[in-house]
Amino acid sequence: MRRGERARHDRDHVLAILDEGLFCHLGVVVDTYPMVVPTAYGRDGGRVYVHGSTASRVLRAAASAAEVCLTVTLVDGLVLARSVFHHSVNYRSVMVYGPARPVTAADEKAAALRVVTEHLVPGRWEAARPPTPKELAATSVLAIALDEASAKVRTGAPVDDEADYDLDVWAGVIPLALAAGAAVGDPRLRPGLDPPDHVRSYQPAARR
Amino acid sequence: MRRGERARHDRDHVLAILDEGLFCHLGVVVDTYPMVVPTAYGRDGGRVYVHGSTASRVLRAAASAAEVCLTVTLVDGLVLARSVFHHSVNYRSVMVYGPARPVTAADEKAAALRVVTEHLVPGRWEAARPPTPKELAATSVLAIALDEASAKVRTGAPVDDEADYDLDVWAGVIPLALAAGAAVGDPRLRPGLDPPDHVRSYQPAARR
Repeated sequence: MRRGERARHDRDHVLAILDEGLFCHLGVVVDTYPMVVPTAYGRDGGRVYVHGSTASRVLRAAASAAEVCLTVTLVDGLVLARSVFHHSVNYRSVMVYGPARPVTAADEKAAALRVVTEHLVPGRWEAARPPTPKELAATSVLAIALDEASAKVRTGAPVDDEADYDLDVWAGVIPLALAAGAAVGDPRLRPGLDPPDHVRSYQPAARR
Repeated sequence: MRRGERARHDRDHVLAILDEGLFCHLGVVVDTYPMVVPTAYGRDGGRVYVHGSTASRVLRAAASAAEVCLTVTLVDGLVLARSVFHHSVNYRSVMVYGPARPVTAADEKAAALRVVTEHLVPGRWEAARPPTPKELAATSVLAIALDEASAKVRTGAPVDDEADYDLDVWAGVIPLALAAGAAVGDPRLRPGLDPPDHVRSYQPAARR
């Protein structure tokens, strides 16, 4: 992912990528070693929330770490150049650095879970049974401020060495995107329950 | 990602997930802070290769780190439960821990780049111009042994609290997968060059 790559620090890029991404990879230093785990997240204004079980080793380490790194990556395409060397990937990614503040107040915790749920599937929070106090207590929520965040983006066609444009090698881009298939009802679904709009029309890239 | 989650340490799961994934997130400790970057990779037997520019700060840090963490995540679906609390994600992920050995010998470096290229797009190595010695020298390659690797997998329907099965809430799974669209030829493509088989029939989940 090296050619055509540009760091974009402006806020609009960072927010747009964070809002389109579904999951992040959270990096934490545990006993001097890096751990990288996939997890759901959501954004509320100038902060990102992640959540997990209170038993999660990584979340506990994150809560006491000086800094974590939260990375969101959208893969847009494989860039096939005429030379192996200039092969690349079209992608948009954001890295957020900062301390992860444990969210302990029940009202902020519930609000944060709503943000994460609505981030994944807009409309879902109102449709499902809300968390009980006991469920809230079993859930760890961390907030990371977007004070230190940057985006990297690569788009467009391959960039080949000038001499290579004469080669008889096909070059171009294979577009890639995360796509949703038709929803599969739970085997124990009550009779007569059809998928609601927020499920039936769901697509990751068009969920707002 | 907490319910129905199972750690699977057996080799077959680890290898299957590594072979199906397209990209990884590489975690490295830089000056005591975690950095997580998306990058391409490929597997050759019991090791994984990653590559990048020799100017890459993260790769240089990885090469001298006691241990890195390489995580590959395949997202298979959103698990919509009747309660917010039991919402989850169907996914398969692998975490590989270990030192990242710099690959310096030109022949192993070329072989590793072939592995990474063929991992992304099988058939591509033979189709494109191979790297020159100068291009090889400008490329950093790291090898990470699969000595310490584990997989986590969640599959299937939501798991709700027994009492919640009576709620009038639709529940089920929205399948998700990375899908390829029709290839887009480079604007400077030579006339008469059609996409070859390895491009035309490309799909991330069915590339072997």
